[in-house]
Amino acid sequence: MNNSLGKLFTITSFGESHGTGIGVVIDGCPAGLPVTPDEIQQELEKRKSLHNILSTPRHEEDKVEILSGIFNGFTTGAPVCLMVKNKDVDSSPYEDTRYTARPGHADYTAYLKYGGFNDYRGGGRFSGRITAAFVMAGAIAGKLLALKGTEVLAHTIEIGGITAKPKGIKVIKQNIGNNPVRCGDKLAAEKMLKAVEAARKNGDSLGGVVECIALNMPAGLGEPVFDTLEGDIGKALFAIPAVKGVEFGAGFAAARLRGSENNDPIINEDGEIVTATNNAGGILGGISNGMPLIVRAAFKPTPSIPADQNTVSLKTGKNLKISVKGRHDACIVPRAVVVVKSMVAVTLCDFALRAGIIPGVIK
Amino acid sequence: MNNSLGKLFTITSFGESHGTGIGVVIDGCPAGLPVTPDEIQQELEKRKSLHNILSTPRHEEDKVEILSGIFNGFTTGAPVCLMVKNKDVDSSPYEDTRYTARPGHADYTAYLKYGGFNDYRGGGRFSGRITAAFVMAGAIAGKLLALKGTEVLAHTIEIGGITAKPKGIKVIKQNIGNNPVRCGDKLAAEKMLKAVEAARKNGDSLGGVVECIALNMPAGLGEPVFDTLEGDIGKALFAIPAVKGVEFGAGFAAARLRGSENNDPIINEDGEIVTATNNAGGILGGISNGMPLIVRAAFKPTPSIPADQNTVSLKTGKNLKISVKGRHDACIVPRAVVVVKSMVAVTLCDFALRAGIIPGVIK
Amino acid sequence: MNNSLGKLFTITSFGESHGTGIGVVIDGCPAGLPVTPDEIQQELEKRKSLHNILSTPRHEEDKVEILSGIFNGFTTGAPVCLMVKNKDVDSSPYEDTRYTARPGHADYTAYLKYGGFNDYRGGGRFSGRITAAFVMAGAIAGKLLALKGTEVLAHTIEIGGITAKPKGIKVIKQNIGNNPVRCGDKLAAEKMLKAVEAARKNGDSLGGVVECIALNMPAGLGEPVFDTLEGDIGKALFAIPAVKGVEFGAGFAAARLRGSENNDPIINEDGEIVTATNNAGGILGGISNGMPLIVRAAFKPTPSIPADQNTVSLKTGKNLKISVKGRHDACIVPRAVVVVKSMVAVTLCDFALRAGIIPGVIK
Amino acid sequence: MNNSLGKLFTITSFGESHGTGIGVVIDGCPAGLPVTPDEIQQELEKRKSLHNILSTPRHEEDKVEILSGIFNGFTTGAPVCLMVKNKDVDSSPYEDTRYTARPGHADYTAYLKYGGFNDYRGGGRFSGRITAAFVMAGAIAGKLLALKGTEVLAHTIEIGGITAKPKGIKVIKQNIGNNPVRCGDKLAAEKMLKAVEAARKNGDSLGGVVECIALNMPAGLGEPVFDTLEGDIGKALFAIPAVKGVEFGAGFAAARLRGSENNDPIINEDGEIVTATNNAGGILGGISNGMPLIVRAAFKPTPSIPADQNTVSLKTGKNLKISVKGRHDACIVPRAVVVVKSMVAVTLCDFALRAGIIPGVIK
Repeated sequence: MNNSLGKLFTITSFGESHGTGIGVVIDGCPAGLPVTPDEIQQELEKRKSLHNILSTPRHEEDKVEILSGIFNGFTTGAPVCLMVKNKDVDSSPYEDTRYTARPGHADYTAYLKYGGFNDYRGGGRFSGRITAAFVMAGAIAGKLLALKGTEVLAHTIEIGGITAKPKGIKVIKQNIGNNPVRCGDKLAAEKMLKAVEAARKNGDSLGGVVECIALNMPAGLGEPVFDTLEGDIGKALFAIPAVKGVEFGAGFAAARLRGSENNDPIINEDGEIVTATNNAGGILGGISNGMPLIVRAAFKPTPSIPADQNTVSLKTGKNLKISVKGRHDACIVPRAVVVVKSMVAVTLCDFALRAGIIPGVIK
Repeated sequence: MNNSLGKLFTITSFGESHGTGIGVVIDGCPAGLPVTPDEIQQELEKRKSLHNILSTPRHEEDKVEILSGIFNGFTTGAPVCLMVKNKDVDSSPYEDTRYTARPGHADYTAYLKYGGFNDYRGGGRFSGRITAAFVMAGAIAGKLLALKGTEVLAHTIEIGGITAKPKGIKVIKQNIGNNPVRCGDKLAAEKMLKAVEAARKNGDSLGGVVECIALNMPAGLGEPVFDTLEGDIGKALFAIPAVKGVEFGAGFAAARLRGSENNDPIINEDGEIVTATNNAGGILGGISNGMPLIVRAAFKPTPSIPADQNTVSLKTGKNLKISVKGRHDACIVPRAVVVVKSMVAVTLCDFALRAGIIPGVIK
Repeated sequence: MNNSLGKLFTITSFGESHGTGIGVVIDGCPAGLPVTPDEIQQELEKRKSLHNILSTPRHEEDKVEILSGIFNGFTTGAPVCLMVKNKDVDSSPYEDTRYTARPGHADYTAYLKYGGFNDYRGGGRFSGRITAAFVMAGAIAGKLLALKGTEVLAHTIEIGGITAKPKGIKVIKQNIGNNPVRCGDKLAAEKMLKAVEAARKNGDSLGGVVECIALNMPAGLGEPVFDTLEGDIGKALFAIPAVKGVEFGAGFAAARLRGSENNDPIINEDGEIVTATNNAGGILGGISNGMPLIVRAAFKPTPSIPADQNTVSLKTGKNLKISVKGRHDACIVPRAVVVVKSMVAVTLCDFALRAGIIPGVIK
Repeated sequence: MNNSLGKLFTITSFGESHGTGIGVVIDGCPAGLPVTPDEIQQELEKRKSLHNILSTPRHEEDKVEILSGIFNGFTTGAPVCLMVKNKDVDSSPYEDTRYTARPGHADYTAYLKYGGFNDYRGGGRFSGRITAAFVMAGAIAGKLLALKGTEVLAHTIEIGGITAKPKGIKVIKQNIGNNPVRCGDKLAAEKMLKAVEAARKNGDSLGGVVECIALNMPAGLGEPVFDTLEGDIGKALFAIPAVKGVEFGAGFAAARLRGSENNDPIINEDGEIVTATNNAGGILGGISNGMPLIVRAAFKPTPSIPADQNTVSLKTGKNLKISVKGRHDACIVPRAVVVVKSMVAVTLCDFALRAGIIPGVIK
């Protein structure tokens, strides 16, 4: 039961899948930042499901409402509360399966922890839908970082075992918006899309990996020993449902490199201190070194699948079979791309405020 | 500059590699826990370097001193301050290389962030030596968890690309203490040791992976959406120097599984709710489900290597070559095993207090 | 820019005087607490201005909306978001005086701190109106405390120098609801009311003192050395606009007593450990001793007065005269009574959760 | 059990009255601040008891040891750990009264809360001796504030009902160091001293009031709505044992003023915005306005008195008599002056870092 994140740039999340809506309070946002509802909406649109992208007509949903903190188009220094209302949804199907724990979901742990009082409709507080709040906060954070020239981007690098080929930043940026899986490699994107479609037809689902890159990073962000860049970004990413792994730079592959291979040589390049390689992912000693920050998050496959699965009744404890019906995403990775970007942006923003790089008033 | 971790069980770390010593203040420890210096010392011994293990005579060092919070053999409810003094070391070699940033180390980022005032001797605050404080805190945390039957163990599963074969818990437990690399697979342990020796001879270093398992986990630990088990354990592990990746259960491999493969079937086994597999690593929705908690941390290879490397002078910015001399661990993974265990224990202890599973007074 | 309070029972406040509304997110509320909108509304009604109480017809306003965290009449363990919408108010008068700092108000400090971006309409974020959020949170906290038999009550003990005579708890309880100034002493209440009316007629305003008493206090609440009962309650009360002093038990008067007078003798009364007097206000060493908790908050007189006052222009810095128009409360003390009670309840609730006295799930 | 205070400038206190010593970890102190042990010692000397001041020879005690965070005479950005060792004291007298709760002390509440495991010798963790840690932290904080020209001073304004006459800052500064009760009014100081001596002879004790003034305050400190200047300073002061009331500016007296009297007129004085009076104590809306900050703390009389008092046995619950023996301060107010100053300095330092007024590196 802790729904706040960040020390100086603090987001507080509230809302459930089938309740009134999903919201976020952003506390510590400097005054004087120009913000329009459209800018937030644009980010929310990137969280649309593949389903909606591929089908028409487009569902009008997740429209941002500004409840506080923005006045005459600028942040005021007061907490910014943003909300998207839930559409009227039919929650009745959830009544039947209320006490049937869906494997891979939080049904069992939530039932235990909250004594059965948790809102079970659509996963309630454990629904991926709460990430809409993360994205709204990320929209504000991204604008703050942009003031200092820092750009955060994310892209799909793996779905169902299909991996994107490494591409230059320019190509990645071009491709992300041009394919529904938000992959920087066009050919891989096509294969990923087919794999997702095939999985859906087979009543199955896929996972994948999202990579996030922050360009033009200020050096000196991070507050070790405990509030390291890796630690706080990692924590923020693990708050996204389905993330089971996080790595920076060479990550798990670094464990297989020799020191002579993994160490990034430091060089003075026309007066700028850079590293020849970036196995560190832009972080040394928990602090940014000015190179691009690189982080990857592993997503497990969507647990909601129509196939018959073994489970138990939360009420009686008896063994049961369950088949999860409904239009679930066969792969949530493409939708998660903007969520990963948002959580990284929110965390960097907190560090930039702590380091005094973003001031208390934007002028 | 944040050196405290945990909400109710809070550890505050202080000290540097070549200063007076390394210490930790443990705040929020319940009163009434019996603690002897020997119990803490025993854990500290597991952090001895391979170097010391393989050579004789054994160096008498890292002797715990209890500065507060323990009275008549029991914790009092007051903050527990523990410290190990640094041995008299010759810091003069560090004067020569004071302004030469060692690649893969925090020299450059620390210099930038602290304006050159950071203690540079032996890495100062960024030395792996500060993990002695983590281990002392872990010793206390482990005792608290044991009261509820929870046992935290860790073992090396990979060094320099050599992987341990999966073994049963019983075998792992037997083997960890019987080989200097603290691996559960005896055969792999021998190969790992050889690989480390070979790397050292070649003036190089190796990384690896440590796995931590918590047995007899209480269900219901974790405070989503932000203080998830994964998030807080991940953050704690990223505070260990050299950790670049963290994953839970199937982790990054889960990204390549189908939902039908990755979902853990839930079954009632003689009245106990368990899962048939444990790809979730004992965590669903950020909350423990009672299955063993499984987490892995990837360590990059030791950055201190004698080979010539490109770098710059922090003073002049000019390009230089550096060769890092001294008796550095060619692989810190074996020493890190107890550190990983400690950080997991510290985090679980915090969650157990938050969930009310460990009471404020031990009776 | 910090709008969250509490460690385990955490309230996050948002909203402005003339924006969409005033809201609060209550995080850490145990699951299973039955809550109806009426119960919250009842508390909000106690914050009505004297103005409204004395005049008819009653203004329909400050109607609570539950945005999250309550499902089927019970808290779910998820964050509870509560909001009252602002009525459509004419903010145009504030345009004229936008740059004229009202003496005794936060206009000047807010302008400085937020670079002029703060919402100045009706005081914006610094309006007493934000205490509606405190009251909504207090309604929930009060219900939680009641589960353990703890009752928090508050009453006016002084207005404009007129002091209430000490009365027994029973009499105080009876009288609070029976007079518009919420005073436990009926005769004093009449004088206070007259004094407020007289001040209003003279274009002036009055301050006063509110006392809060928590009955049936559990012993052992408080987390010294820094999170003392006095410290955290004090901090919570200083968040109420216009509070300039806080004291516990004998308070400032204790400074004039001798040790032999001020020490409360401890006695065993039919098996219960009590003190013969309660100069400590129920707190020793920052921890509750089971006696009634007693705290008083001093409120300065309402700064909004029609009399001409010297001030400066925030824009030009030039000296000006200002007369604050509008229907302001000539004394906010009667409205503040429920606010004081709420903040004490919120703080005690946090401590009760920290001490494990209120469980994570209400059964 | 919370022993840390502050968000960016965080102090963590440890130690007990009769244990190894009293210490503090200061986290978040900017790098590059020159600090000598003498500067800290000088502050510690101001905490000497009247007893020592009036008698000779002077006891050599409370000698500061720097355990971490200071290197070559400058802070490094790493946590600063400071400690004073306890002298070898005879704790045997405390064995006899171990289970006899001293009225006005925390014996009963500590026993309850920590299940009897608390260190009872000399009050253990609840001893006024722990304020030595506050003073060491205050020495560092004071130096940081001085960089921006802010000066924090404190003086005794009341002891045993004898009040100091209001004096100008210059006179107060001169007098504080020239009399053992640290009062700004010489004549009152003499009377206070006599009153203390008389109380001691009568086997009784006195309380009093300490006022703290911060001169040359930066405007804009304070983070409302919850982290107000009043709230955080109040919380810090209530951590000092024996403080039962805190007020700012006119404080409780403001409750008796009319708005027209209490409002401080704002004027432009040669280009500087000031207020004609300072009833606000330099704070509006929880934020500093640049005028001197004024805060007062009320201290109850020392609870340790030789007179017979009623109490109970913690072991049996039976009614007993107790007479507290030993050389206790008949009035701790003179010693508390530097402690009040220190806690205000520590809090202001935290706010100055949060406002970006003190940078992360001192150059």
